[in-house]
Amino acid sequence: MPPLLDWDHGRVEMSHGGGGRAMARLLAALFLPAFDNPALRQGNDQAQLPLPTGGRLALSCDAHVVTPLIFPGGDIGSLAIHGSINDVAMAGADPLWIAASFILEEGLPLSILRRIVLSMGQAAKAAGVPVVTGDTKVVERGKADGMFISTTAVGVVPEGVHLSGDGMRPGDRLLLSGSIGDHGVAVLSCREGLGFETAIVSDSAPLHTLTAAMVRAVPQGLRCLRDPTRGGLASTLHELAAQSGVALRLREEAIPLRPEVSGACELLGLDPLYIANEGKLIACCAPEHAEELLAVMRRHPLGRQAAIIGEVLKGAPGVRMVTRTGGERLVDWLTGEQTPRIC
Amino acid sequence: MPPLLDWDHGRVEMSHGGGGRAMARLLAALFLPAFDNPALRQGNDQAQLPLPTGGRLALSCDAHVVTPLIFPGGDIGSLAIHGSINDVAMAGADPLWIAASFILEEGLPLSILRRIVLSMGQAAKAAGVPVVTGDTKVVERGKADGMFISTTAVGVVPEGVHLSGDGMRPGDRLLLSGSIGDHGVAVLSCREGLGFETAIVSDSAPLHTLTAAMVRAVPQGLRCLRDPTRGGLASTLHELAAQSGVALRLREEAIPLRPEVSGACELLGLDPLYIANEGKLIACCAPEHAEELLAVMRRHPLGRQAAIIGEVLKGAPGVRMVTRTGGERLVDWLTGEQTPRIC
Repeated sequence: MPPLLDWDHGRVEMSHGGGGRAMARLLAALFLPAFDNPALRQGNDQAQLPLPTGGRLALSCDAHVVTPLIFPGGDIGSLAIHGSINDVAMAGADPLWIAASFILEEGLPLSILRRIVLSMGQAAKAAGVPVVTGDTKVVERGKADGMFISTTAVGVVPEGVHLSGDGMRPGDRLLLSGSIGDHGVAVLSCREGLGFETAIVSDSAPLHTLTAAMVRAVPQGLRCLRDPTRGGLASTLHELAAQSGVALRLREEAIPLRPEVSGACELLGLDPLYIANEGKLIACCAPEHAEELLAVMRRHPLGRQAAIIGEVLKGAPGVRMVTRTGGERLVDWLTGEQTPRIC
Repeated sequence: MPPLLDWDHGRVEMSHGGGGRAMARLLAALFLPAFDNPALRQGNDQAQLPLPTGGRLALSCDAHVVTPLIFPGGDIGSLAIHGSINDVAMAGADPLWIAASFILEEGLPLSILRRIVLSMGQAAKAAGVPVVTGDTKVVERGKADGMFISTTAVGVVPEGVHLSGDGMRPGDRLLLSGSIGDHGVAVLSCREGLGFETAIVSDSAPLHTLTAAMVRAVPQGLRCLRDPTRGGLASTLHELAAQSGVALRLREEAIPLRPEVSGACELLGLDPLYIANEGKLIACCAPEHAEELLAVMRRHPLGRQAAIIGEVLKGAPGVRMVTRTGGERLVDWLTGEQTPRIC
């Protein structure tokens, strides 16, 4: 466990933004009590909000600080669009609009700014989710790192759809839409100059048409959806296990992993279970619907490699994994900051 | 006029974030075409969006980069809450929810983080607009400046209310809810160590109950509302004049200005017309409703010093001012960056 927070002498550390235990602790000790309200208490990556005019909104917000700004398979602009769409889509909602704010560092070449903003506009257009309002600020040279983009997506949740991370029940199946680690390894290999750029590209993609197909196909049996971004598959499953109060058991051999990504992780000393993804989702569904859901996912271009990777068990919240050799091991929370500024 | 943008060799400059002409040009040349859509084209500080379930949302987004983080009368946390509420309130909307993202610099004392987050929570609670979703990221020491906060507010526009910056007509009256320059001078004097801190405090405040009273009182005659933040009263009036295609004429003697703020501006070599406000609004209304609207504003605690400061004329878009001595002068756009990182 990371040390308790020392409010008098402590300082913000990189691990407080890593998606693991230190971040969870900072959120639980400070942000959640300071802003406490029922929507925030839902504990999902988006808030689901009853409109006074009827219906429910899904609202989600992300700051993007990825470095480098442009990486194999994407850039901070397209990533911001995809990330916000996905967080809203994980509520089963139709994303409708995005708000975007930009913090620019004095001295950023206009050529880079233009490339990123145009890419962002194209990503929004391709996804059919327009950026409808925004803000730009500039800070002095050395007070930011090129540019940061915060995006907020607004969606509408279809009637009858109620997905939440606290909905998992023993017996449910866990599905994953495709291979893990691609985004994180693409960014890291580019950053480290490892030359994997041609082989490994980010999986950054908008998942809302995939989730819409899944919600339509299995309106009752689907319990929850979540995208395993910062902190990777392992940390996201820990969040879900804690939220639902269940134990999760994975089968290592069922988890899709590209050989190039596996090799790069070995070289970099990283565990792909903790590496961020930006175009993948975890689904939990009732066992009798698992095969049907899997088939629907595999028919979608972004779910061709989908797999049933595990199941939900009774027991203390946690994550275990049956290894390739048939043993079983604990999969811990991410401790510390494995891959800083990956999104 | 600032120079044209050189996409090949140009760089982001502080003036691109200043709220004046250079920023307007960057928005017009890059951001607006890249994201082009009808909501963005409205050109207001918030997007007004028709919900598929009926009714209209107002959505607004701001990045906050003020320095110092804590200043007389507020801090970056309460400022972020007030700023986002106000942008939505200027559509005549009821603000309902806020999404917030935090970019933290490694090494920021936890004591400061806690103070700001608690202040932000209190501001949200006092205004009755909860922070329902959020995100935190951490960047390395030297890659940010303490902390940045981006907030997005969501509101619902009451039926029949249609306020937009393009609604002004010749003959309309311009009203201002109170004195100008307080926020900007409070931040600057604190930054420069000028010792005005006890005399001048930020006017940072949520204006949604004031706007609600105004909309109720004058449902037909009210044309538009806008808060004169970055760029100050002058730049905001220029935006409105351009949007409506009208000329505006102010009376200098009618513009509320505290003597302390006036004195500090003289000392700092600043023009209060260009200084940011965070708890004031400009209203434009039909002449026959101006006195009634003024009375409503003065009955509200945040509008006690409200005044009719000018009128709308036919003519080329621009702003003129009848000075105290009876002459008339042009009030230009803000050129360059008068007060960087004021919000």
